[in-house]
This record gives sequence, C-alpha cells and structure tokens, in this order.
Amino acid sequence: MKRKFLPVLLLSLAITGTSMAQSGYKEDSVFIRKIFHTALSDGKSYEMLRRLTQEVGPRLSGSAGAVKAVTLTSEIMKAEKFDQVFLQNVMVPHWVRGAKEEGAIFNGKQKTVVPLVALGGSVATPKTGIKAQVIEVKSFQELRDLGTSVVKGKIVFFNRPMDPTKLNTFDAYAGAVEQRGSGPSEAAKMGAIGCIVRSMTTRLDDVPHTGSMRYASGAPMIPAAGISTNAAELLSKTLKTNPATEFYFKQSCEILPDAPSHNVIGELKGAKSPEQYMVVGGHLDSWDIADGAHDDGTGCVQSIEAVRLLKVLGYKPNNTLRAVMFMNEENGLKGGIAYADSAKSKKEKHIAAIESDRGGFTPLGFGIVGTPAQKQKIKSWQPLFSPYGVHELGVGGGGADIGPLGQQGTVLMGLIPDSQRYFDYHHATNDTFDKVSRRELELGAASMAAMLYLLDKYGVE
Amino acid sequence: MKRKFLPVLLLSLAITGTSMAQSGYKEDSVFIRKIFHTALSDGKSYEMLRRLTQEVGPRLSGSAGAVKAVTLTSEIMKAEKFDQVFLQNVMVPHWVRGAKEEGAIFNGKQKTVVPLVALGGSVATPKTGIKAQVIEVKSFQELRDLGTSVVKGKIVFFNRPMDPTKLNTFDAYAGAVEQRGSGPSEAAKMGAIGCIVRSMTTRLDDVPHTGSMRYASGAPMIPAAGISTNAAELLSKTLKTNPATEFYFKQSCEILPDAPSHNVIGELKGAKSPEQYMVVGGHLDSWDIADGAHDDGTGCVQSIEAVRLLKVLGYKPNNTLRAVMFMNEENGLKGGIAYADSAKSKKEKHIAAIESDRGGFTPLGFGIVGTPAQKQKIKSWQPLFSPYGVHELGVGGGGADIGPLGQQGTVLMGLIPDSQRYFDYHHATNDTFDKVSRRELELGAASMAAMLYLLDKYGVE
Repeated sequence: MKRKFLPVLLLSLAITGTSMAQSGYKEDSVFIRKIFHTALSDGKSYEMLRRLTQEVGPRLSGSAGAVKAVTLTSEIMKAEKFDQVFLQNVMVPHWVRGAKEEGAIFNGKQKTVVPLVALGGSVATPKTGIKAQVIEVKSFQELRDLGTSVVKGKIVFFNRPMDPTKLNTFDAYAGAVEQRGSGPSEAAKMGAIGCIVRSMTTRLDDVPHTGSMRYASGAPMIPAAGISTNAAELLSKTLKTNPATEFYFKQSCEILPDAPSHNVIGELKGAKSPEQYMVVGGHLDSWDIADGAHDDGTGCVQSIEAVRLLKVLGYKPNNTLRAVMFMNEENGLKGGIAYADSAKSKKEKHIAAIESDRGGFTPLGFGIVGTPAQKQKIKSWQPLFSPYGVHELGVGGGGADIGPLGQQGTVLMGLIPDSQRYFDYHHATNDTFDKVSRRELELGAASMAAMLYLLDKYGVE
Repeated sequence: MKRKFLPVLLLSLAITGTSMAQSGYKEDSVFIRKIFHTALSDGKSYEMLRRLTQEVGPRLSGSAGAVKAVTLTSEIMKAEKFDQVFLQNVMVPHWVRGAKEEGAIFNGKQKTVVPLVALGGSVATPKTGIKAQVIEVKSFQELRDLGTSVVKGKIVFFNRPMDPTKLNTFDAYAGAVEQRGSGPSEAAKMGAIGCIVRSMTTRLDDVPHTGSMRYASGAPMIPAAGISTNAAELLSKTLKTNPATEFYFKQSCEILPDAPSHNVIGELKGAKSPEQYMVVGGHLDSWDIADGAHDDGTGCVQSIEAVRLLKVLGYKPNNTLRAVMFMNEENGLKGGIAYADSAKSKKEKHIAAIESDRGGFTPLGFGIVGTPAQKQKIKSWQPLFSPYGVHELGVGGGGADIGPLGQQGTVLMGLIPDSQRYFDYHHATNDTFDKVSRRELELGAASMAAMLYLLDKYGVE
C-alpha cells in the first residue's frame, strides 16, 4: 500500500473556489513538503526535548528546575541564531511538595501502602499525618446529599473515573477533573478533614497523578492528594466489605512566597510588518514529580522547531514570528497573563497564536478560535495539510497560555494530536522522554511550522 | 474543546445518494456507537494480548511458543463460547536461531562488540565465526558495479536507511527491505562470504531487528545478520577512516525439517447464509526474539475481539463470521495459503476478509482490494466511521495472510493504523506488551467489528 503526496493537480482542484491563486497553492504545497521533509530528516526537536527532560527534568514554577529550563531554552534559541531572544519577567506561585508522601489503607489492622501524591497547592497534613474513616462519592451532589453529619471528621474519597467511552480523552478529563480541582473544598465545606482523589487517567495502574487544586475562599484548607487508579479500586472494594475502613496519609507541602520567573521568547523579525506578531508556544513549567515530556516539553520544543524550520528553509516572514515558552501554566497561568498584558501595553498587535499543549503525539488537526470568516479562511487550507494526516481543521480551541491574548482579537489555535495516550502520563512520574515518539513529535512541529507559514503569508482576514 | 459524535441528522445528510435507506444508517450509527463504547469500557483485547505476549511470548513457526499460542487462542475463543473453534493443519518451516549471536567491529586491534541478530532463514557461520573485511553499499547496483574482484571473500554490509521523509513508514520499509530479503544472495553472487544488514527502522538505537531472508536458487547460502542502526552508523564511520576494518560475527542457526502446526479458527454461524464467510484475522506466529506484541499479537486479539463484540452485543450475523489466527506469516505464509486452499476445496465462499497486521496503533482507515464498485460501496460507509477518527477508507491494501483468498474473488481489507511507531519495534526484542496502548488497541478492534458488521449486513455487491 502507498500513501503518496496528493498530486499537485488534485490539490489545485480541491481548492477551486478559494480566494488564493492556484499558483500560490502549488508553491505552498512544495514549501510545506520541504518543511515536513526537513523536520523528519534533519529535525532538532527530539534532541531539544532530550535536553529539556533529561538535563533539566521537573521544572515547577519557582523551582531550580524552572530556572534551568529558562536558561536552556534561551540558549537553544540563541544557538539557532534567532533574531532576538529575551526573557519576560513574571512573578509565579511557589508551592513545594516537601518530603515524599505516605498513604495507606487500614482495613482493621491490615495496612496496605498505596501510591499517593499531594495535589498541587495543597496544604500539609499534621506532622504525624491524618487517619480517618473514608466517605466514597462519585459526585459533588452525592457528597452534599450525605449531609455534614455523615461527612464531618472523615476523609472524602472522590472516585468517579474518567469516562473511557469518550473518544477524545480530553472530553473524559473535562468530565472528571472537577473532583481534583474543586473536590477538596467541596469536601471541606461538608466538614471533611482530608480529601483523596482517584487519578485522572483511564489506565488501571500504580502511578498517582498530581495536578492543580484550588481552595475556595471561605472553606477550610484541608490536605488533598491523588491516589493511583489501582489504589482507588482497592479502597472502593475494601469499603464495600468494611465501611469502617480508614485511610491514612501524610504530606509536608508548603506554599512559599511568590517567586520571580520568566517567559522565554525567541523571534524572527518580520520584513513587511515587524510590528505585527504571530506566536507559537508551549509552557515551560511542569509538575514537580514529572520530567514533563508530553506536558509540555513537546509543546516547547515544537514551538522552537517550528520557527527554526522556517528559518533554515530561508523563509522571510512578513510579520514577526515568536516562539514563546510560557511559565506557570500548571498552577497559575501567570506567564500567559503577563505575556498578554505586555503585548497590550506595548501595543504589539498579535494576529494569531498557536499553542501545543496536548502532548507530542501524531498531529490530526488544529483547533481554531476566531470569527466564522477567519475559521473559514484557515479551513480552506485543508488540502495543504491532508497529505500529512492533519485532516481536521477547526475542531477544538486554542490553549490555556494563549487564552489571555484572545481579548485582543488574536486568532487562537491549538495543535490537536491523537489524544489516546496523553492521560497515561499526564502529571505523573512516567511522563518521561522515552514515552515520546521522535516521528510523532517531528510531525507536530512540522504541522505547526506549516500553519505558521500560511498564517504569516496570507493573514487571517 | 469537544469532539462529539456527529448528530444522526448530519450522518443522514452525508450519505444522501447511497443505496441504503436513511433509517438503516441511523440504526447502524447507534449500533456502531455501542461497539465502540463496549470495546472501550468492557473490552477484552488488552488482557488477551497480555496473555499472548507475557504467558506465551515468542512463537516462531515450529517452536514450543507457537504450540502454546495455538492452545491459548483456541481456549480463549472457546471460553467466549464462539459457535465453533477448530484447528486447521498446516506444515510450516522450522528455523531455529541456536545460541545467542556475536558481532564485533575490528578497527585494527580495537574491537567493538555490536548488537547483532541472525536474519530469519540464515545458515550458521562456521563454529568459530567469520571475520573479514567489509564492503559497504547502499544498493544492489552499487554492489554489482564494484565487481567480484572487490567483493570476493568479504562481508557485504547493506547500509541504506529507511527514508525518514516518507510519511507512511510502510513506504519507507518497502524502499529498504530488499536489502534484508535478497541482499545476502546478491552479495553471495558477487563472491561475498557473509552479509550484514542495517536494521529496518528509522530510529537510531541499539536494538537489532531480524526478519525473513530468502536465498536465491543457485547462489551460495552465506550467513546473514542484522545489526542495530547505531552499529551500522559506527561501522560506516569506522570504514571511512580505516577501509581495512574487519567485521566478525558468529551464529549457529539451523533449518530443521518442516513441522506440523495450525491455523486457529473461531466462528459464529451465519443465520441466513452460513455457507458464506467473512474473515477477520491476524497472524499468530512472531519472530523468536520478540514477544510479538504489535507484530502481530494485536491483530490476533483484535480479530477475536471484533467477533466477540458482535456476539456480546447480540448481533445475529447473516454470514458465518470467522476470527482466524494464521500461522507462519513471518517466514513462509503457509497458514494463509493453507486457509485459502481449504476454502477452495471445501467450496466455502469467502465474501470478505479483513486483516490487522500493522500494529495496534490508533486506527485511521481501511485498505480495500476489490472492484471499483465494491470499493465505492464500502467507501460510502465513511460517515459511520468518521466519529471514531477512522477517516480514510480505500487507501492501502489487505494483508499478507488473506492475500491468497484474493484469487477466489474475496474482497480484501486491511486495518490501517497510524504507522509512525511500528518500525520502532518490528521484529525486535522491544516489541513488548508495554508498547501497546490499551485504548489504541481497543479502537482498532472496534473499527474491525464495525466494518465486519457492515460487510455482513450489506454485503459487498
């Protein structure tokens, strides 16, 4: 079997009726082929990712790893001779995990140690930990229906799994993640003294996942942790035979004063409209327990690579192109907000921004947030992407870090890769370099470069 | 972002103009949704694969592992209460690797041990191995142009990499694999005493890949082995500085007499036309150094699962549906040939056959081999697959094992998954269970079940 490039004739036929001249599309299809070939044969994204995940590793906002990551990505872009590489100051939350956590199920005198990690932003337990009976619920409503008399003094256990029947795993995540984000405060409002949450993954394994948790104002700040899905299954089963089962956990996390940090920006100056900007970006911070390969090392190196590919292929941009490593997506979004604030105050007109923050998997499409006319224009480029498996333009949105730019009229786009494996590794210790396929990563970078090229060449109006 | 099922209305609109009533399509879209939901929430393919790869493991034709695999898959289908489970006798080649191979580069007195595996079907070296100067070539033409005087008494080293710029890695494989399949005899014809081949993968790593090699009649049978891509790079670099570099390898493989083995077949009887057959299949044998997870444990368990899904969802097939585990795809295709011969002699009319032998990755489409009218009919079902990411019907062919059925007018189809990672693991020790994503595997099984359902319900004419 063969899967060849669409013949140019077919491409031309397919775009009949668009506003672009056929000759332009022929030229574009040739240039985009060069982008993909270069990414796959002489790409640098994989080696950049190796350095970011293995030389730096975990890089939560405020940590020494985050400082190293700023230096490394800055140096990489300088070595690639981007026209300008600079840092943008941003104050970020600084939460630290402290000593490794402990977690255990006590079924009478039988103790079973389980994999557990504090949720990001959680307070510590008392030094000796907490141990209490467990109330298992699958929703906030179920919790409220139990009433404070039942919940008071207990540990609330949220155990609603991600729905495996959702084809796109981000939909399944969206349907379950409130338990992690808001569950601890919901539990506290009902009198709970601690909260544990089933990890956000469709896998059944022993890997606990962390992630951000926000205390609601007015509710007591109780310690909160994630337990592995196997541990959640075991605890649930144990509770069915012994409702008096107790859970124990101990963690020593702290919220420190906000820390100075940076967004890292590399740019190629625009030849015609240097005062207009196009952004490709990912977030540089990761959770502290993870090397942050898919979340979001891949997005960072793909962004650098997208700009680098256009540069090495001799493309002279009309607008100024920027690769942006946003700081603090995981627990504050301060980098994305600071970037948009800076753009506004400096009157930097941002035409479009593309984010990659869904893992370095085979690219299938791009999400678009813009006016119907803008979406239609971008979707008309579909025939240029189809030869590369990128078959769905316009399904999905942009990304968290570029979100704040939306208020300035910027078209927001998100790279949409295959979602099946993302939550196997998300926010967990197994989000490591070896989980990334070189070719999948490179195809994503090439897709972003191709989209950046078209946005720059044709604009969005 | 959301990726919801296409509303039924949209589906109906999309299929306007086909021969099927809209009500049929609504019913089909509901049933296919059930197939996918069941595969993702109550699927058994992953556990079947765990057993096949971890309880059985390597299962080359004629080996004890192959016998175990026959028993295991037979028992699995009996436990699922398929209407009939039976074995089909087939004589298979029986090649054994013998003791672990040795390989090394000698740059003067400097010896560097390199990862090497005998190619399937190769003869042994002398007991002390062979050591000789190396002739590196990238094509048969380059070899022939050197002439016998240069090649005689040397080891020929084929070092043409798979082309990384091919989007579909099977195209890259097709462009390089002649070096492994025919290279040793081409080298022997020029007087070489041994042959080593760069592994068939786009990765640069230390994992040597095996695979079948066929001696041409009349050419001396010289020993042949695959070396890892890193070893190939090193050897090539060493030869540039020292053309007198020698290579040494030792292997003790043997070709034993053909052995009795089996295809394993499980079926659901057809209610209307039990004498007509629809097949879903994969091959049960794997290379001896590999657990055969992606090649082709996934195809086997997806085939069983496809039939099982229709059964547990209460579907009563018109035709007799068969899950077939073909034996001996890797080094003889005797199972596929025996199956087609049996079908012919028993006058079992085979309407369609679907093979899965491209790994258990996210399904993107199906290849079709049939008449233009048959292809058109099957392609008209596209709207029923699009909600599941299966967006390309009719690009690509069937599969090796079902190939012999083609002469009987059977429509041949191949599941086409994402190809990016397949050759990272193909024919190598790292083709293990942990490389398979549960969800990707299940989506493939569900896609096959949905296609089998439509083929059975609507036929191919």
